[in-house]
Amino acid sequence: MPHGYVQDDISPEELERQRALYGPFTQAVRELVDATIRTTVDDDEVRRAQAEIEAITARLRSSQLEGSYGVRFGPTGRGRPWGNTVVGLRNACAPPLVIDHDPSANGDVWSEFHLGAAYEGPPTFVHGGVSALILDQMLGEAAGAGGRPGMTATITMTYRRPTPLGDLRAKAWIDRVEDHKTWARGHIEDAEGVTVEAEGLFVLPRWARELKAKQDAADEPPSYFE
Amino acid sequence: MPHGYVQDDISPEELERQRALYGPFTQAVRELVDATIRTTVDDDEVRRAQAEIEAITARLRSSQLEGSYGVRFGPTGRGRPWGNTVVGLRNACAPPLVIDHDPSANGDVWSEFHLGAAYEGPPTFVHGGVSALILDQMLGEAAGAGGRPGMTATITMTYRRPTPLGDLRAKAWIDRVEDHKTWARGHIEDAEGVTVEAEGLFVLPRWARELKAKQDAADEPPSYFE
Repeated sequence: MPHGYVQDDISPEELERQRALYGPFTQAVRELVDATIRTTVDDDEVRRAQAEIEAITARLRSSQLEGSYGVRFGPTGRGRPWGNTVVGLRNACAPPLVIDHDPSANGDVWSEFHLGAAYEGPPTFVHGGVSALILDQMLGEAAGAGGRPGMTATITMTYRRPTPLGDLRAKAWIDRVEDHKTWARGHIEDAEGVTVEAEGLFVLPRWARELKAKQDAADEPPSYFE
Repeated sequence: MPHGYVQDDISPEELERQRALYGPFTQAVRELVDATIRTTVDDDEVRRAQAEIEAITARLRSSQLEGSYGVRFGPTGRGRPWGNTVVGLRNACAPPLVIDHDPSANGDVWSEFHLGAAYEGPPTFVHGGVSALILDQMLGEAAGAGGRPGMTATITMTYRRPTPLGDLRAKAWIDRVEDHKTWARGHIEDAEGVTVEAEGLFVLPRWARELKAKQDAADEPPSYFE
């Protein structure tokens, strides 16, 4: 496997322990990111918060991974992309999206999520590039859920109207396939309907095709390609 | 002006004071986000950090904006999009990009920046959607720098090869114009060359065209549209 894919063979109990520890911890940091943008407390309070945060960071850094989180794998099942900027359990910049899929439908995936002040572009609206970020992830997950994992080759966004910050929903599905190419489509919608549409082409690199062939031969569940 | 655009008429001295206060504060939160992903300290230390962060957030929230930051304007010059998820001085999820432009060139903009663990997609690589997020902002800034501000109507990304996390550079420029439509192009590159290319169409909404006509009539410098 290439650099950044780590087989750590943790047990299901250890996985649960890590989820219960890092999930609420990262959520606390997400709340801090939101408060950092919106606070109007006085300068002394801001400086005091800064000093405390720097001290916390120094303690957390006393023992840390050399680089980014990557994707870590236990003995079975899907990898843990916990540093991922869209779905990462340990990434405070990830909303994080929890993406559902229907195993009986060929690649249909969906997610409901909330985007707050940290995702702003035009005032009170979601940054157009955040919609692109989310739809890139959704379309890639659709390809993976349909057993056609791949990396984005091209993707096009069409903006119907501005997407308001708040409660949103995204859907994606496989449109068509050809050899190792997969075309996926999807959109983001608010309560009034679709705001942004996306179409993308996903292609599986050679090393990943070989890895997938091995997994398929071993009758493991399809692991999607992050 | 629509909701979220605030004319607060702060003085140049007050602007400098706010930059000097919120810049380093937000940078401390960015470092915490990175450490949150990468730390391997023991569970008690993580729980202690969480409790301290929750207390800091509660203090910051004792006085805060009702919603997102929006864009705030002083008596002259460009707005302050400090909550913006790509360039926002107060947004810990923004790298943040500092985007330069050559006033003598028609819309040429560029930026050098570093993307760490918080921007990961495929292990050790920048999330394809983060490249889209950055290029959406860059192309929009190119349109604005060329006096043709607008909102993204469509944008297409073409991925040449994976973009490694680390030091990167982005460029964007106006490709062609027609009425209130502006086509911009750009790319991201690492030390070995271009990794992702983008082409987008930007259109100025009617209310913003009217606002811009007023600004042009008042001989103010062109303010770009976030």
